[in-house]
Amino acid sequence: MSNTRSDILAAARGILAEHSLADLTMRRLAADLGVRPNALYWHFPNKQTMLAALAEDILASIPGPSPDIDWLTELHRLATDLRAVLLAVPDSAEVVSSAWASGLADRSIEKTIADVAARGQLSAQASSGLATAICQLTIGLTIEEQTRTQMERLGVTGSSGRVFSAEFDDALDIILDGARARSEINTVA
Amino acid sequence: MSNTRSDILAAARGILAEHSLADLTMRRLAADLGVRPNALYWHFPNKQTMLAALAEDILASIPGPSPDIDWLTELHRLATDLRAVLLAVPDSAEVVSSAWASGLADRSIEKTIADVAARGQLSAQASSGLATAICQLTIGLTIEEQTRTQMERLGVTGSSGRVFSAEFDDALDIILDGARARSEINTVA
Repeated sequence: MSNTRSDILAAARGILAEHSLADLTMRRLAADLGVRPNALYWHFPNKQTMLAALAEDILASIPGPSPDIDWLTELHRLATDLRAVLLAVPDSAEVVSSAWASGLADRSIEKTIADVAARGQLSAQASSGLATAICQLTIGLTIEEQTRTQMERLGVTGSSGRVFSAEFDDALDIILDGARARSEINTVA
Repeated sequence: MSNTRSDILAAARGILAEHSLADLTMRRLAADLGVRPNALYWHFPNKQTMLAALAEDILASIPGPSPDIDWLTELHRLATDLRAVLLAVPDSAEVVSSAWASGLADRSIEKTIADVAARGQLSAQASSGLATAICQLTIGLTIEEQTRTQMERLGVTGSSGRVFSAEFDDALDIILDGARARSEINTVA
């Protein structure tokens, strides 16, 4: 029986890992922690606030950028790390999408990506567009992949035969080519 | 009381328009149509099959490409049309994502985008990557926008102040710059 903020987030990850986002209710969380539901509301006023904290917690494990590494290499690494931390927690892409929609979670990964893009001489608008393209490719494709994983886990269907990692890599390469093209325009000008 | 395949899909759109994806059950559909749930299963063996047909129905209203129009202009138009048809039906981006995950819906919009990209001399791998980037930007960002719309409609929160259309345009521009850069490499070579 424990009930700190990090205990609650760990229990939430546990419910996603063993069940699904549909099972992640405040009632279920309280039961898993051995406390009454009201005890959770001392830390989180509602479920959306808890999901926002969970989204931030999941994304917090992405290492920050290093100024010593080439900006395009760093962008590629941030995108693949974003995908990796999402894939590590079932249904988390949907959690992050919902948390960003609610406005309750910070979207610091977008800011980080935009800051690295600015090192490549991209304009503020282009840097922001690049961050959106990278984040939504990753969130969108991972929502699809994690939905598929749940369907397979429930035995609704067999393997899709799709190689999501290859779909991701090919799409990311096009987006980074766009970033490089913008950089070259601004570097030449 | 009616129960053709198109009646069912129209009723499904109605439930999304007036309520949400969470309310779109086979039972609810049958009630709205004035038939018994079993009557629906003559057309669709299960809910996933119905959602796949709904996803195809929503995307079918995107006009096909014309060979007379510049390939990059056509790619931009396909992406904005994809976004527009999704925004016209609440929660439909999630419906399409789930339908694509299930493998029960065709993903002909991806094929269409890849075919147009091939006109710009992109390789098969680059064309496919471009299609993924465009589709997942659109699906991912629209899931977020439609989730936000539902939150605002339920009075959970006020306006986000975000301009999703500008976020989309800026991200799409970067992706299309990537397509142009690939085309130039292959045209020069």
